[in-house]
Amino acid sequence: MTHYYYFKSQDLRKYMIKCFTQWEVPQSDAQIAAEVLLSADKRGVDSHGIIRLFSYYGLRLQKGLIDPKSPVSTLRETLTTAALDGGNGLGHPVSYKAMQMVIEKAKDNSVAFATVRNSNHFGIAGYYAMMALPHNMIGICYTNSSPLMAPTHGKKAMLGTNPIAVAVPARGQLPFVLDMATSIVPIGKVQLYQKKLKPIPSGWGIDSDGNPTENPDQVLNGGALMPLGGPENLRGYKGYGLSLMVDIFAGVLAGAGFGEGVLGANSDSPSNVGHFFGALRIDAFRDIFEFKKDMDEMITALKNSPKAAGQERIYIHGEKEFQRAAQAEIEGVPLSDATIATIREGADKLGIPFSLIPIKQGEIQD
Amino acid sequence: MTHYYYFKSQDLRKYMIKCFTQWEVPQSDAQIAAEVLLSADKRGVDSHGIIRLFSYYGLRLQKGLIDPKSPVSTLRETLTTAALDGGNGLGHPVSYKAMQMVIEKAKDNSVAFATVRNSNHFGIAGYYAMMALPHNMIGICYTNSSPLMAPTHGKKAMLGTNPIAVAVPARGQLPFVLDMATSIVPIGKVQLYQKKLKPIPSGWGIDSDGNPTENPDQVLNGGALMPLGGPENLRGYKGYGLSLMVDIFAGVLAGAGFGEGVLGANSDSPSNVGHFFGALRIDAFRDIFEFKKDMDEMITALKNSPKAAGQERIYIHGEKEFQRAAQAEIEGVPLSDATIATIREGADKLGIPFSLIPIKQGEIQD
Repeated sequence: MTHYYYFKSQDLRKYMIKCFTQWEVPQSDAQIAAEVLLSADKRGVDSHGIIRLFSYYGLRLQKGLIDPKSPVSTLRETLTTAALDGGNGLGHPVSYKAMQMVIEKAKDNSVAFATVRNSNHFGIAGYYAMMALPHNMIGICYTNSSPLMAPTHGKKAMLGTNPIAVAVPARGQLPFVLDMATSIVPIGKVQLYQKKLKPIPSGWGIDSDGNPTENPDQVLNGGALMPLGGPENLRGYKGYGLSLMVDIFAGVLAGAGFGEGVLGANSDSPSNVGHFFGALRIDAFRDIFEFKKDMDEMITALKNSPKAAGQERIYIHGEKEFQRAAQAEIEGVPLSDATIATIREGADKLGIPFSLIPIKQGEIQD
Repeated sequence: MTHYYYFKSQDLRKYMIKCFTQWEVPQSDAQIAAEVLLSADKRGVDSHGIIRLFSYYGLRLQKGLIDPKSPVSTLRETLTTAALDGGNGLGHPVSYKAMQMVIEKAKDNSVAFATVRNSNHFGIAGYYAMMALPHNMIGICYTNSSPLMAPTHGKKAMLGTNPIAVAVPARGQLPFVLDMATSIVPIGKVQLYQKKLKPIPSGWGIDSDGNPTENPDQVLNGGALMPLGGPENLRGYKGYGLSLMVDIFAGVLAGAGFGEGVLGANSDSPSNVGHFFGALRIDAFRDIFEFKKDMDEMITALKNSPKAAGQERIYIHGEKEFQRAAQAEIEGVPLSDATIATIREGADKLGIPFSLIPIKQGEIQD
């Protein structure tokens, strides 16, 4: 069980904007960054929300390791493509801009893609993919991240948790929003088990010799995460391949860092994270009404299909997150004790105390 | 151990073309289909090669369930997109044409995508993705297939093994070629264990109640494959999401069958398989020389990274397959006893006896 306090969306948004602008981030960029972080907390992806405000963004902005002005430049551009340089600014504003660009280009040319180099952590990939939804487009977003995962047969972390996000609109049903790390779990999950002194499921991580381990300490101290699939007999090399694919699109194609060249929160050099964005007009391929009708049909068929013993519900990707976000608008955005402690620590150092009044509190089953 | 006979590439090619043309497939289409099937056997993907010549293609061509003339039509087309109707012809010729189209369109417009509806099984997805490589492009190919895999929390097969293929050129290193089913294994793997009376690893499949099982009979009789990741604690819902994503691009977007609407080899109606193809010009984003140099650097770094205990080599996706294909050109294409028996059975019925002389034989460890 974890204890949560619930805050009003607008209070958290205002607070984050205040912090970002104090770090000299321009107001419009601060708004975007705050919105993306807030969206993570609303959708239940606590690891990618406000908890990073001080521990990642604030830390690196204050050290001069992120340029608050985000001086974005365009390196190459065609009617259907753009290669951007994020100027070592925050990842959110340049990503928002890149996704807007591909949506505009796709309006005129059916499909469009953009890469971003020289960027930083941009929050949740799903946020940008979902920007395509109101335009009746399919949105795509990949990003690389600093190494945490070993390749199959390896023992050293060489690849990030490199997520894949794809958003597709439906008609009456909620959109399909896949937003998944290509590692089996994020590192935060292993840290959570460590904190609770609980063993992790076999297949999540390896120790420093490359052997599977159920001891979270061994994964965190010299070990590594395993790719989606886990061990070889469960086809972990496919997850390794997906992670490498993401690093090729977001890292190599973008001309950003890749593999060990992407630096983490605690590094003393710019991260050089890379991103990849895409948008496809659905009506370039098919009547949009028929497409959405079939999306509803597919979703309904899956949800109505027979359940495994002991299961009551089949989910579509993004469904739980949309429901949490809707709930958060009503009940407030839940922040855990631990998240609030992390925020308070950073807030006090910055001199912008975190003194928001929660609208309620409660326990949530882990 | 499996016993293999090795045949000359050109003998197998000629033999397959002879069969296809006898089924009234035009010579040029027969050549493409034979080439794609041969490529699977050369690359070591036995399940998708000549073994399907009679058991899938011949069977359905003779029953009139595949139109040998492959009357392809274009439903929608822009400078960067095409939506094709395969006219219930063989999957290979229309897929070859669609991939050629996106490559030509990408030459002029940087990126291009095509969908195909009303098609049939097209062999290995990697073949089409790899067509982009000589053009300094990234190639993408998805296809859906008839249901074999249950969604997470479900017990009924609702989605195919829906593969993802992505091919990316390098400079001195072999290209990266990811070609993976989004189910944990293909159904053929479970059949192999059944034949050998061996239990399957836990996580590959479920029984008819949706419970994980190590008994291949239970998976094959009323059960289903699990998605990449396997059970929920190893994040099988990510593989489920990838499979659904492929069915959205190749099925729903193409206006082809999707989910249970894609019919298998033994159905008495057209399969209505759908495909999705893409090509991206690398130099739209970045200098091609620098890109390839970085691909080499990334591949080398992964291969040189420290090995897990007991492992000697880290592979890049496609590497084993390229080596097998090169070997097959020298030593011949290996066909197993079981594959040859399947071919002989079909060949005798057709009246084109399979009487090719193997150039050698031997045992290969399973």
